[in-house]
Amino acid sequence: MAANVSLEQYLETNQERYLQELIDLLRIPSVSTDPAHTGDVARCAQAVADRLVQAGLENVKIHPTARHPIIYADWLHAGADAPTVLVYGHYDVQPPDPLHLWRSGPFEPVIEGGKIVARGSSDDKGQFYCHVKGVEAHLQRVGKLPINVKFLIEGEEEIGSPNLAPFIAAHKDLLAASAVIISDTHMIGPDSPAITYGLRGLAYIEVHVEGPDHDLHSGNYGGGIENPLNALCALVASLKDADGRITIPGFYDDAIPLTDEERAMMAALPFNDADWLKSAGSPQLYGEKGYTTMERITARPTLDLCGMWGGFQGEGAKTVLPSKAGVKLSMRLVPGQDPEKITRLVIEHIERAAPPTVRVRAQNLHGGDPVLVSRDNSAVQAAARAYERAFKRRPVFMRSGGSIPVVASFLKILGAPSVLMGFGLGDDLIHSPNEKLDLSNYFRGIAASACLWEELAVRP
Amino acid sequence: MAANVSLEQYLETNQERYLQELIDLLRIPSVSTDPAHTGDVARCAQAVADRLVQAGLENVKIHPTARHPIIYADWLHAGADAPTVLVYGHYDVQPPDPLHLWRSGPFEPVIEGGKIVARGSSDDKGQFYCHVKGVEAHLQRVGKLPINVKFLIEGEEEIGSPNLAPFIAAHKDLLAASAVIISDTHMIGPDSPAITYGLRGLAYIEVHVEGPDHDLHSGNYGGGIENPLNALCALVASLKDADGRITIPGFYDDAIPLTDEERAMMAALPFNDADWLKSAGSPQLYGEKGYTTMERITARPTLDLCGMWGGFQGEGAKTVLPSKAGVKLSMRLVPGQDPEKITRLVIEHIERAAPPTVRVRAQNLHGGDPVLVSRDNSAVQAAARAYERAFKRRPVFMRSGGSIPVVASFLKILGAPSVLMGFGLGDDLIHSPNEKLDLSNYFRGIAASACLWEELAVRP
Repeated sequence: MAANVSLEQYLETNQERYLQELIDLLRIPSVSTDPAHTGDVARCAQAVADRLVQAGLENVKIHPTARHPIIYADWLHAGADAPTVLVYGHYDVQPPDPLHLWRSGPFEPVIEGGKIVARGSSDDKGQFYCHVKGVEAHLQRVGKLPINVKFLIEGEEEIGSPNLAPFIAAHKDLLAASAVIISDTHMIGPDSPAITYGLRGLAYIEVHVEGPDHDLHSGNYGGGIENPLNALCALVASLKDADGRITIPGFYDDAIPLTDEERAMMAALPFNDADWLKSAGSPQLYGEKGYTTMERITARPTLDLCGMWGGFQGEGAKTVLPSKAGVKLSMRLVPGQDPEKITRLVIEHIERAAPPTVRVRAQNLHGGDPVLVSRDNSAVQAAARAYERAFKRRPVFMRSGGSIPVVASFLKILGAPSVLMGFGLGDDLIHSPNEKLDLSNYFRGIAASACLWEELAVRP
Repeated sequence: MAANVSLEQYLETNQERYLQELIDLLRIPSVSTDPAHTGDVARCAQAVADRLVQAGLENVKIHPTARHPIIYADWLHAGADAPTVLVYGHYDVQPPDPLHLWRSGPFEPVIEGGKIVARGSSDDKGQFYCHVKGVEAHLQRVGKLPINVKFLIEGEEEIGSPNLAPFIAAHKDLLAASAVIISDTHMIGPDSPAITYGLRGLAYIEVHVEGPDHDLHSGNYGGGIENPLNALCALVASLKDADGRITIPGFYDDAIPLTDEERAMMAALPFNDADWLKSAGSPQLYGEKGYTTMERITARPTLDLCGMWGGFQGEGAKTVLPSKAGVKLSMRLVPGQDPEKITRLVIEHIERAAPPTVRVRAQNLHGGDPVLVSRDNSAVQAAARAYERAFKRRPVFMRSGGSIPVVASFLKILGAPSVLMGFGLGDDLIHSPNEKLDLSNYFRGIAASACLWEELAVRP
């Protein structure tokens, strides 16, 4: 107990220890996809559990799953009136390959120019650990937290979290919370914190077209039999108009439009079309008429072919009229759109629009809910204030074009919105060689976390 | 010499010998594509040369090529005023696989219900040999032919005749003829001879589309970057309209339209749409508005995708925005259309029609000239009369939707039109197990050939 020390002083005097502890955690090669590292993943789970205990958390338990364990911990003595939040993170990491591109060993952390370089530094060990230290700063200094907090740290995020949603569903009471805090995204600039309040969902279908029941000679049959590849191209092309809008009836019906306020906010984000285009390596920007690039890639639905096949793909000129063709069709969805309903609409439309000269079969492969968290949500507003105290700058609010399935799971199963407040940067090279985390962001992340518990306790 | 015997009597008394000689020829496994059979192919060339000598032909020579030999022979004593024709055929055969489906050995000919079953019986040993015997029937019986005749029998037809066109070009004087006689097609019914007077040509291009210079995450980039697969589908779909007509400007400009007479002739052919559709196994007929199936598949140009690829083709739902996509595009051409001009038109159109959001590269892979032989040609008319004498029925005139490259070569290099008069049937199972030739057609084929030399000598 060091109640006579201010939070700021406490955080500053402990920085060297924070760094050393992170280094220790990063030394464990907890690669979840590689069976050779199963023991390392278990060892990492134990290390995380030990740190949660050390931080002053209680009921720390390592829950085994079919593959890698999930860790739970809590501190619930702030009283029934105080809010309860759940911190989510993951202690598993991506494989370090290709190894030869690392400047030092991926699991031998080094400090280079104010950054810690190691696999998992940004994704996600260095980020979720901010919250462990943020909690500790209160419990070790004053013996209590202003709110109730729970931790759920999994070891399977990099392999698609196969056991997480079932675990949440089976432990609804244990995990009950008014909000989930997740630090597994990145800020919009070196000193510009960002809260992601919208995520796109997904509908993913596969379409098979069969024309003749065997490959035909294109000389003997060409002109009298529908070619399934031609038919599939026409079908797929008809799903979008010249303005880049999706033509499937009812597709946009439930999509919540962007407000003028949101559009103004997006326009003010430090985002550069030319830089972004360069990162894609495409000759020109593309997209739905009437929207900016940022709007198109984060807040508007899409229809993209992820794969297509049919007929002869080898060298040369085989003159075949193929029997079959297929395509994988992915649609990013926006808040309001229901993946199941959209999937049904699209499949029905495709079956209706297909010519009678071919047989068409469309099937649902995968779906995910879009997410929109109100920027007025009290936990979101608390995170904004905490960010501002630690980074000396108001965070921007943004949407992300991708999907984070766990966020939809927390909302669906627990009814809890997620606050996505990242401490990483876009150039952290997550999933790549020489992954890093800026130490200034690690330390400010710990401070933001420590502030967050105080801000969450503030009654509006 | 047996000049006192009529042609009919001579042919009838020799049938058993004709059959035995064909059996001997079919016993040689002259599989041109299989290096293990190179010796057999050479042995077969020698056997054919021996038969040409035996038939009374002169200047018999086996010309080696880079792979399998070409056999030449002639008889040129009919005088400078008499026409000179060239008989083309091939002594090589398709591989016999799958072997287990043959009722007897593919190279152990058997007679079953009036048919001779063996690889090569219909394609093409049993057909070109009709002409060897047809010539022999004159030379052995009366010591002369009413016209001059040359034979060109190759051993590489089943592997695409790689050495034939160069050989023709190098031996233009040797091969000079006013017409080429080819029996390597089939009749339209068991007793219905058919002369094929039109063949489609071919233009075959490959189109590559590149969007981003690497595969992108469809969540992070989807909606702001053109997807090359979507773009390629739209591009390809735009090449045809709802009536099945090709939209490329100028595409139809040089296509010679079907005459009313031809259309009436086609309508009278014993062709059944339902049976034909059944052979394709497609749910419905398809094609260019305003034309019958027979017209569409033999006398109208086509645009068919032979293959297409891009992105993820494996199991499941990978959310990738692919960097590249490609397609193989084949166009069957009709008489009047020039493959080089069409290829240029199509490539220019595709490059012009492609959106600026992707990079498009189209390249020529292959081409072949369409062929139209006048039905009034004297050799064609002579063939019709010869057919009628042997089969007691006027042949029908038809077009074929496929391409026979050698026909275009003879026309281009020698200026000689080809008379395609087949003695096989559509159910001869060429290229398949249990290939057969009806003995009645073999014997009537020999008779038709013997009559042909007489009819060719008739001055109009």
